[in-house]
Amino acid sequence: MMNNPPVVSTAAPVVVRALTRQSVPYTPIWLMRQAGRYLPEYRSLRAKAGNFLSMCQDPDIACEITLQPLRRFALDAAIIFTDILVVPDAMGCPVEFSEGQGPCFNQPIQTLADIKQLRGDTALDHLNYVFEAIQQVRVALPAQQALIGFAGSPWTLAAYMIEGSGSKDFLVARSWIYKNPSMLHQLLARLTQVIIEYLNQQIISGADVIMLFDTWGGLLSSEQYQLISLAYMRQIIAGLRRQQADRYVPVIVFTKHGGQWLNAIATTGCDAISLDWTTDVATARSMVGSRVALQGHLDPATLLGTRQALEVAVRQVLADYGDGSGHVFNLGHGIDRHTSVEQVQYLIELVKDHSRKYHLDEIDARS
Amino acid sequence: MMNNPPVVSTAAPVVVRALTRQSVPYTPIWLMRQAGRYLPEYRSLRAKAGNFLSMCQDPDIACEITLQPLRRFALDAAIIFTDILVVPDAMGCPVEFSEGQGPCFNQPIQTLADIKQLRGDTALDHLNYVFEAIQQVRVALPAQQALIGFAGSPWTLAAYMIEGSGSKDFLVARSWIYKNPSMLHQLLARLTQVIIEYLNQQIISGADVIMLFDTWGGLLSSEQYQLISLAYMRQIIAGLRRQQADRYVPVIVFTKHGGQWLNAIATTGCDAISLDWTTDVATARSMVGSRVALQGHLDPATLLGTRQALEVAVRQVLADYGDGSGHVFNLGHGIDRHTSVEQVQYLIELVKDHSRKYHLDEIDARS
Repeated sequence: MMNNPPVVSTAAPVVVRALTRQSVPYTPIWLMRQAGRYLPEYRSLRAKAGNFLSMCQDPDIACEITLQPLRRFALDAAIIFTDILVVPDAMGCPVEFSEGQGPCFNQPIQTLADIKQLRGDTALDHLNYVFEAIQQVRVALPAQQALIGFAGSPWTLAAYMIEGSGSKDFLVARSWIYKNPSMLHQLLARLTQVIIEYLNQQIISGADVIMLFDTWGGLLSSEQYQLISLAYMRQIIAGLRRQQADRYVPVIVFTKHGGQWLNAIATTGCDAISLDWTTDVATARSMVGSRVALQGHLDPATLLGTRQALEVAVRQVLADYGDGSGHVFNLGHGIDRHTSVEQVQYLIELVKDHSRKYHLDEIDARS
Repeated sequence: MMNNPPVVSTAAPVVVRALTRQSVPYTPIWLMRQAGRYLPEYRSLRAKAGNFLSMCQDPDIACEITLQPLRRFALDAAIIFTDILVVPDAMGCPVEFSEGQGPCFNQPIQTLADIKQLRGDTALDHLNYVFEAIQQVRVALPAQQALIGFAGSPWTLAAYMIEGSGSKDFLVARSWIYKNPSMLHQLLARLTQVIIEYLNQQIISGADVIMLFDTWGGLLSSEQYQLISLAYMRQIIAGLRRQQADRYVPVIVFTKHGGQWLNAIATTGCDAISLDWTTDVATARSMVGSRVALQGHLDPATLLGTRQALEVAVRQVLADYGDGSGHVFNLGHGIDRHTSVEQVQYLIELVKDHSRKYHLDEIDARS
C-alpha cells in the first residue's frame, strides 16, 4: 500500500510535486529517451565513444549525455542515461549492443542452474557506474529539475534474458509461463530482489523519482500480467525507501500496452502511472480517479508531423487531463531518432504556454 | 448498423451459428494460421512450391493448403490460404515475400500521385486466384465446416504500403496522421472501396464468414483508432452483402491490442469481435454484453507448454465465456511455427470435451 500522505516539500522539484499531486504553476514536462540519437551532440559523442554499453559504464559520459537535453530545452527533469539491461549484465548474464541490432544475450537463461548462478546482492558492485553517474548529475542539476532513476520490470528483464534478444512477441519467454512456471518465478524473484536494492541505491545516490519500465508487460494475458509482471512490481514498490529524511521519492509505473489494466496498476502503491500513446489521458483519469498521478501520453509520431498538428495534439492532452495537479507531460513512448530538435523545442513551449490555465486555482491557493 | 436479426438456417455451419449467437451443441473451434509452418505437410509443399506469394496465387495449391489442417484435426472452419497483402499487390503496389524477411514493398506509397495510380475496381481482376481458391475449397469442404474469407483493415494495409515493410511501430506510416492526414485518408478510402468489393466477391465465391484483420490498429491512439481504423472498417461492414438468399455471412473484427476499444468495435455492426491473447473473455463479455459474439482468445504460447498447463488455460477460457452460444474458440494470435501437431490435436479435443456443458440448455431448447 501507499505510504499516505507523502511528505513533499514545497521546494521539491516541480515534477516531484506533480507526481505527488501537490500544487504546481504549470504542467511539468520531460520526454522518454530525451537523451538520444535525435540530438546532434549525442550522435557526435557516440561516434567518438564507440559502443553503447561502454557509454553507460563511464559515469562522466553518462552524466554528460544525461545533461545534454537539459542544456537545449526547458525540461523539468533529467533521466539518468543508462539501459534497463545493465541489471542482467551485472547479475552475470552479459549483454551486448551491436549497432542496428538491438541488445543480445549470447548466453540466454535456459536452466535452473543458469538462474542459480546469477549474482544477487553482489550484482550491485557491478553497477557502481550508475550510482556515480547519478551523483554527478544530481550535483550538476539545478534543484528545481528532478533526476529520474529507473529499472526494467522483472518480467521485462526476464523476457530478454530468456529470449536472448529483442523479439516481436517474446514467445520463447512467454512459453515458460506454460512450460517452466516455477523456474520463471524463481528468475523473477531473483531479479526483484536485485532491482529493489539497485533502486534504493539510486535513491541514496540522488534520484528524485523512480520509474519502472514494464516494456513487455503488454504481451501478457490479463491474468498472467497480474501474476508475472504486476505482482513483482508491487513487491519492488513496497521495498523502496521512498520517504527519505529530507524528501519523498515518487514511483512511476509504465506498462506499454497496459491500458486495459490501469485499475490494477493503480493498486500497486505507485504514485503515478505513465500512459503509452494508445491510452488517452481523459479515459485514464476517469479510470484511476485521484488515486495516482498520470504521466504521458503524446504520440511520438506527432513530433514527425506539422507544427499545427503538434499544437492540436498537445492542447488535447492538456485538456484531457483538465484542471489540477497530478499530470506530468511526456510522450507515450521514446522520441524517435528522426525527430527534429526544433519540433521538440516547440513541444516544450506549447506545454509551458498552454498548461498554465489548468493550474490557476493552485497558484491562487498558494498565494 | 447491424441488419437485425440475421436469418440463419439451423443447417448453417456451427461456426456461423455461434457467430450469430444461435444455439450450438459445443463451442466450435478454428485457429488463426492453422494452415501454416507448424504442419509438416505445409512445409513439404512449401519446399516444392517455392515462394509464398506464388503459393497464394495458385488456386490449386491455396486450396490444398487451406484443407491440410482439416484433414488432420476436427476443426469447425477452414480459413482461405492467402495473405492480407495480396490486395495492395493487386492494386499495383507490388509486394515481395522473401524467406525470413517478411513482406517488402519496393515502391512504398510516398505521394498523392502514388495513391491516384492505384487500381480501384479493376484490382479485383488481379485477385481471381483468391476467388477460385474459395470456390474450390467450398466444394471440397463438408457443409458443416465453415469457410472463412478475410481481408486486412484499410489502416493495416496502408501501414505496410507507406512503411514499405513490417515494422516494430510503423512510425513512418503513423507520422502521416500528423503530416499528411488528407493523403492518408485518400489512401484509406481507396483501400476501403476495393476491400468491400473484394470481400463481396469472396462471399459470392462461397465464403461463409468474413474476418477483418486490423493487425496494426493497436498502434494508434484511442482517438486516431476511431478515425483511421474503425471508421473505415465500419464502412466496409456496411458495404458487405451479408444476407444472401440462402445464408447469412457473419463478420468478425480483430484488432490486435484493441482490448481498450471493445465497446467501440461492438458499434461497427460486426457480428463478432475476435480477442487477442491479452484481453480475457470474461472481461470482454461483460463489456460487450450480448451485442456481439466473441472469438478467441487462448495465448498461442500455451501450445508450447505442458499438456496440463494447456488444459488449465482451455478450461479457463471456456469458463470465462460461460453458458450459452456466441463463442468461437480460437487463439489470440496465429499459431507459432514451433508448435507440435500433438499439442494442437490435444487442444481441439479439450475444447470439444469441456465445452459441451456450457451448451446443455441450448440442446434441450432445440430438442
